[in-house]
Amino acid sequence: MNPTHRLLMVRTVASQILRKKLHDIPLSKDRYNLRRKSYATITGQDINFFERTLPTNNQVLRGETEAAGYNRDYFRYVRGMSSLVLKPRSAQEVSSILKYCNGRRLAISIFGGNTGVCGGSVPVFDEIVLSLELMNRVESIDRYSGTMLCEAGCILGKLEQNLSEEGLMLPLDLGSKDSCQIGGNVSTNAGGIRLMRYGNLHGSILGLEVVLADGTVLDLMSTSRKDNTGYHLKNLFIGAEGTLGVVTKVAICCPPATVTQNVLFLGLKNYEHVLKTFLEAKKLLGGILTSCELMDHSALDCCIKHLEAEAPLGEFPFYLLIETTGQHKEHDDEKVEMFLEQVLSTEIIQDGIMTSDPSKIKKIWQLREHIPTAIYSNNFCLTYDLSLPLRHFYDIVPETRRFVGDAASLVCGFGHIGDSNIHLTVAGDELTDEMHQQIDKFVYGFTSNLRGSISAEHGIGLLKTNYLEQSKSAQSIALMKDIKYTFDPNHILNPYKIFN
Amino acid sequence: MNPTHRLLMVRTVASQILRKKLHDIPLSKDRYNLRRKSYATITGQDINFFERTLPTNNQVLRGETEAAGYNRDYFRYVRGMSSLVLKPRSAQEVSSILKYCNGRRLAISIFGGNTGVCGGSVPVFDEIVLSLELMNRVESIDRYSGTMLCEAGCILGKLEQNLSEEGLMLPLDLGSKDSCQIGGNVSTNAGGIRLMRYGNLHGSILGLEVVLADGTVLDLMSTSRKDNTGYHLKNLFIGAEGTLGVVTKVAICCPPATVTQNVLFLGLKNYEHVLKTFLEAKKLLGGILTSCELMDHSALDCCIKHLEAEAPLGEFPFYLLIETTGQHKEHDDEKVEMFLEQVLSTEIIQDGIMTSDPSKIKKIWQLREHIPTAIYSNNFCLTYDLSLPLRHFYDIVPETRRFVGDAASLVCGFGHIGDSNIHLTVAGDELTDEMHQQIDKFVYGFTSNLRGSISAEHGIGLLKTNYLEQSKSAQSIALMKDIKYTFDPNHILNPYKIFN
Repeated sequence: MNPTHRLLMVRTVASQILRKKLHDIPLSKDRYNLRRKSYATITGQDINFFERTLPTNNQVLRGETEAAGYNRDYFRYVRGMSSLVLKPRSAQEVSSILKYCNGRRLAISIFGGNTGVCGGSVPVFDEIVLSLELMNRVESIDRYSGTMLCEAGCILGKLEQNLSEEGLMLPLDLGSKDSCQIGGNVSTNAGGIRLMRYGNLHGSILGLEVVLADGTVLDLMSTSRKDNTGYHLKNLFIGAEGTLGVVTKVAICCPPATVTQNVLFLGLKNYEHVLKTFLEAKKLLGGILTSCELMDHSALDCCIKHLEAEAPLGEFPFYLLIETTGQHKEHDDEKVEMFLEQVLSTEIIQDGIMTSDPSKIKKIWQLREHIPTAIYSNNFCLTYDLSLPLRHFYDIVPETRRFVGDAASLVCGFGHIGDSNIHLTVAGDELTDEMHQQIDKFVYGFTSNLRGSISAEHGIGLLKTNYLEQSKSAQSIALMKDIKYTFDPNHILNPYKIFN
Repeated sequence: MNPTHRLLMVRTVASQILRKKLHDIPLSKDRYNLRRKSYATITGQDINFFERTLPTNNQVLRGETEAAGYNRDYFRYVRGMSSLVLKPRSAQEVSSILKYCNGRRLAISIFGGNTGVCGGSVPVFDEIVLSLELMNRVESIDRYSGTMLCEAGCILGKLEQNLSEEGLMLPLDLGSKDSCQIGGNVSTNAGGIRLMRYGNLHGSILGLEVVLADGTVLDLMSTSRKDNTGYHLKNLFIGAEGTLGVVTKVAICCPPATVTQNVLFLGLKNYEHVLKTFLEAKKLLGGILTSCELMDHSALDCCIKHLEAEAPLGEFPFYLLIETTGQHKEHDDEKVEMFLEQVLSTEIIQDGIMTSDPSKIKKIWQLREHIPTAIYSNNFCLTYDLSLPLRHFYDIVPETRRFVGDAASLVCGFGHIGDSNIHLTVAGDELTDEMHQQIDKFVYGFTSNLRGSISAEHGIGLLKTNYLEQSKSAQSIALMKDIKYTFDPNHILNPYKIFN
């Protein structure tokens, strides 16, 4: 499921899941059958050191109650047992903490906005929580070069506000933007619905400041779009889920803000036509194409019923939601009209509507955004976040439907066809643990055979550690472990995450 | 100097430099005072192994004469002493060679299209040359997802032709495209004139196949735009100049081909107005803005005189060449006209012309492309490839002019303002080694103080190893060396490069 839809889903799920009290959530160590590694345990002397190092109010939280919010994730998938939370205000403070913990072999769990869905940001045992929330200063925004420098704890939505005052925007947009932090976005290589247009963070992040496990402050804060002087170290930290270092500062390249918006909603008779339409959209809409979202009939139908909404078109096996954003209203409108005429007249699509009316755009997007909410009204719901080659993008849906048979009442597919990222969903009344495992195995095996990704945007965290080898070769994983050892020989940073 | 301009320059320089015979070029080891590291030397048994491993004709070249073309770079900056060239046809053959060399401690120099300008692709002592030229197959092009899979030895220009048949284009364009190889482009993180629009290779490369020093074939050949499963290893090899592994296969994300082209040539009275114009171009031209090139008066004047060309405008302190490419002629023309009206009416520019006539476009681009050629008609010519923050982008020119005083007759600046990449040039009649060193020190010091890059697109290779620390901190360099040791503990891959 895409981060954009996460919060929407949460609003509904809240009634069932989010009211869970801390002690209703099983401990991660029990649920995932984990054993504590041989780290040191926190002593009074350690506490004294941390209180001296972080001298201002509220920088050190102690005890189960104070640490409660840092011991569970938003979705109540995981629960840790930490009783110490540290909130540094500077890279120097992070450095002092890490140097000390590395010497003492104290494990650390790095905490950002806690919006991840793979349990990556929450401790498993008694790791010390290192929260970046007090490091939330914007250092500078340069409207000429389109670069912003800020601390890792800045909240994405606030950065967006700051940028819009300078006529700029962020290259990424996430549904969790009101709580997620830019440092967490970098560490998880967050994707989102603008990725198709503005590319990934490996392209957009210009520089980082990172504190290594031994306390070294690594200054990689370039603002250059071109810099070929030695290895591109910053890219290793993007998507490393905090296991190689603590990102403390970020330099990001920001495109000019767009001012126009158009949305198309199209009905199609088969997947071959979906591909053709996508190709025409890339050709005719070119630089203004921002999103291209696919929904199958089951997904939309479920959502329409759930919302008690009016269907925007007749019934078709597939639907596409296409969005353009740009700088010139007249040109954009004309391009969108030409595209619609082209795909209608050649019968690549069966029917379609277009609008630039904000209230209508909102209604159309709701049909896409509320699919997860609608699906979650079932008793059980498995969602998979997969990258698959475009030619076989949708095959996984009928194949999974065949595989699960009567065990599920709904198997549907929707997602970002523009990024080859599909959200496969299996839902119904009841699911045994055994069947759950069998479906996981089938879906990840299918994805692996097509050389897709078993976690397109969400990362591995704690929950997918057993499936890493479905997307990466044994040689790659061995090399990752070598790198981990080089950067963090005592494995104090985010233990139990990524690797099992 | 930008790769685009490299070949143009070369055509003129040819008369002076490129006629140099091999033995007229000083040996790199003498010129840069290097000592051979304790690698093994090649024996008859080694040759036997390589001939068995590479069984077809012309896969093994032996002796000084046969290896001559692999012992010097295009610009005659460097000269090596290798007497053995190996040309594998597959990753498996590369693997066998590397595994053997690693066991024997035989050093290897990796050879692509040999278009680099920092001496990175040529051996220094008797390293075995590993040329990828026979690995030149295109595996697949997918017009729907816009992905191409090909071997590392494919020549960029040929890939461009293959792609254009599918309505696609490469995200990078280089002047050396008729001889450079995609594997070399990846290994040097090549930039080029489309970078402003399509981003860098860390964003565009989807997957790689890399053979490690010990012969391990590392399969990172994803075609997914989103894949968050563990560390993003491929990014380490992009720009590592062949020191971490041999890139043997590439998966690259290719945008739809553009069909329109417009060029503007503008005269401006000061650098403040250059910045304002660039900002307006980003705002008003949005998604069709492809290049934004700056020339100062000295640079253009020198070029016009050299070409005996007509000046397109009156005389101004600064000139901007702006190019747009897109999908819709009418819209693009209108946008370009609106932009020109806007910057003229607000007097941000003093004068300007626009054209979409291919022959006129060619003439205008020549004024930019022939600047290096023109400058090279001086007796000496130092060119620097710097990234600098946009606000201080041009400061380096007057500062350097002040610093060199009478020692040079020409100090000028031109380059890609869209990428904050300036080419500073110092030229004249005579230059002492001492003054050369002083100017290097001044320029790199100035760049370092502004946290710029001393090699924006060209890499470090052999020639800039002494200056790496001007762009990277001691901690970063130490970490790079740790990574090098992890990947290639016997240092058999491209020795003497990047690190001194």
